[in-house]
Amino acid sequence: MASSLPSPSLLLSTARRKPSSIAASTAVPQTKDTMRIPPEFDFKGYMLTKAATVNRALDLAVPLADPRRIHEAMRYSLLAGGKRVRPILCVASCELVGGSEAFAIPPALAVEMIHTMSLIHDDLPCMDDDDLRRGKPTCHRVFGEAIAVLAGDALLSLAFHILSNPNSYPSSPSPPSSLIVRSISELAFCVGSEGLVAGQVVDIESTGVSESVPIDRLEYIHLHKTAVLLEASVVLGAIIGGGSDSQVEKLRRYARCIGLLFQVVDDILDVTKSSQELGKTAGKDLVSDKTTYPKLIGLEKSREFAEELNHEAKQQLEEFDSEKAAPLVHLANYIAYRQK
Amino acid sequence: MASSLPSPSLLLSTARRKPSSIAASTAVPQTKDTMRIPPEFDFKGYMLTKAATVNRALDLAVPLADPRRIHEAMRYSLLAGGKRVRPILCVASCELVGGSEAFAIPPALAVEMIHTMSLIHDDLPCMDDDDLRRGKPTCHRVFGEAIAVLAGDALLSLAFHILSNPNSYPSSPSPPSSLIVRSISELAFCVGSEGLVAGQVVDIESTGVSESVPIDRLEYIHLHKTAVLLEASVVLGAIIGGGSDSQVEKLRRYARCIGLLFQVVDDILDVTKSSQELGKTAGKDLVSDKTTYPKLIGLEKSREFAEELNHEAKQQLEEFDSEKAAPLVHLANYIAYRQK
Repeated sequence: MASSLPSPSLLLSTARRKPSSIAASTAVPQTKDTMRIPPEFDFKGYMLTKAATVNRALDLAVPLADPRRIHEAMRYSLLAGGKRVRPILCVASCELVGGSEAFAIPPALAVEMIHTMSLIHDDLPCMDDDDLRRGKPTCHRVFGEAIAVLAGDALLSLAFHILSNPNSYPSSPSPPSSLIVRSISELAFCVGSEGLVAGQVVDIESTGVSESVPIDRLEYIHLHKTAVLLEASVVLGAIIGGGSDSQVEKLRRYARCIGLLFQVVDDILDVTKSSQELGKTAGKDLVSDKTTYPKLIGLEKSREFAEELNHEAKQQLEEFDSEKAAPLVHLANYIAYRQK
Repeated sequence: MASSLPSPSLLLSTARRKPSSIAASTAVPQTKDTMRIPPEFDFKGYMLTKAATVNRALDLAVPLADPRRIHEAMRYSLLAGGKRVRPILCVASCELVGGSEAFAIPPALAVEMIHTMSLIHDDLPCMDDDDLRRGKPTCHRVFGEAIAVLAGDALLSLAFHILSNPNSYPSSPSPPSSLIVRSISELAFCVGSEGLVAGQVVDIESTGVSESVPIDRLEYIHLHKTAVLLEASVVLGAIIGGGSDSQVEKLRRYARCIGLLFQVVDDILDVTKSSQELGKTAGKDLVSDKTTYPKLIGLEKSREFAEELNHEAKQQLEEFDSEKAAPLVHLANYIAYRQK
């Protein structure tokens, strides 16, 4: 799977067109792409409804059982707010290929749990040593390092338990076991030593070194730290929704574009916004000598690159029914034009 | 699953018979139970052959890919020797219910990866702060804390990837997807906040406290830290091997007995053996004020308890063909009478 990721240079080569204007107040200039949004689609309402469904399901998935402290820590980080972009992508992708929301909830919860687990572990003192996450003190600052490590481990295994537990799905009809196995395989691969973990390892190795980090290494980090899980979110939804192989691959390409887009915008926001606005320690990437897009290719070129990725993502949706594809079109814009 | 574990008092109540003699050189007195071993069964040869098969498969399952350092760390801990008790239990259980060794290899590797991951994380400075494991410096002592946390995460997800990847199994016949999903659900549950993680949390909470730890709490720790993964090893083998529900449940009870047995013997060895003999820091549990069976009920009563558990484990195998059950009978003895 990692071997079939588009090469970084291929992705970069799409950043060739010049935007007509640069809006300094947003991370990415809003060009003609934004005109594609069907005006009748209530994106804000869609996001609020889906996020509420996801939040209710997350709340139920991690009851305050014994031992109490570990469940408190899991709930603290999992229910800390977040934008729920990954689970909503999962649900939107499942519904796009004709699956029901109920089928998409287990994989949607699983990807959010994996995401939260990676944040908890990445924030640890031995890694990025972050004090603030989603506007609140990080898990290890509240519960201590040992519980933070274990909360991450527990969320990681809970993700696979939810995916594999027959009680997670509607009983009739329920998704075929073969699709569940395929989705578990996708998710497991994306977390491991060729996915999220690989991205974090290369990120750590690239931090604080004296020579500058080349662009292909930066893209490797982002593809693995961010894009693989966004990809898994979209792909798991498409698999569990019963999408055809060609639909799954189209959506995989869409997800890879918005995956890189997500990180580029994150880097831009880190330079242009304050800590208070972001809910995390802003400018930290620059202070701690982390390689970012603005540092490497400048702020303007970073914005251009983001716009191209957004354009390419939407191209993948052209063969789908435009009304049904509206949520994913809007989600790409949301990622491109978000303010935090 | 955790809710249906036998109550600690039920398990403890089996420790009522007096052994006829105490052999000070072994953890557990060898009584008439040892006479049940069919003399024609070459247990040593069986263990060596199975361990070699498991080691070859583990070696192939974690190639030295990029990023190199994380794969070095995973291989360092995974291939550090170990007795391979869990994967061999998995294979033996699968073969007992009529499954092939090839079917049992993926779950066998998965349980060993989960075991190694839990050792790596438990050894971290923020947890047990151990320097020595399997006779070698611990993962974080060699690769640093960040890589050790990530190596654990990677092994955890690799376990689920191996279980869910169709390429892990023989292509024809291959195990039904429904059995794979069931085995993933079992394993995921046993790692999480009601399994291994729960055991470690309560262990941490019980360390260094001034009041003495009651026996039910000690058993909770051991059932969750040790027994659940031995249970998963046996149960996963039985499921993938196509065992009936009643066979799976018999083997589950066998596994719960040897699970607690394993920990009681571990505690006894920790008091009676030197660090050099054990390959880990001996007596550390006493020094760091950890609750152990010898500390709580004395060395002799601990040995009696171990013998009873061994006896009860073997009772679960009585309905199986005695020749086919020989490996599991011997494995129970091996756990009871091991020297390290």
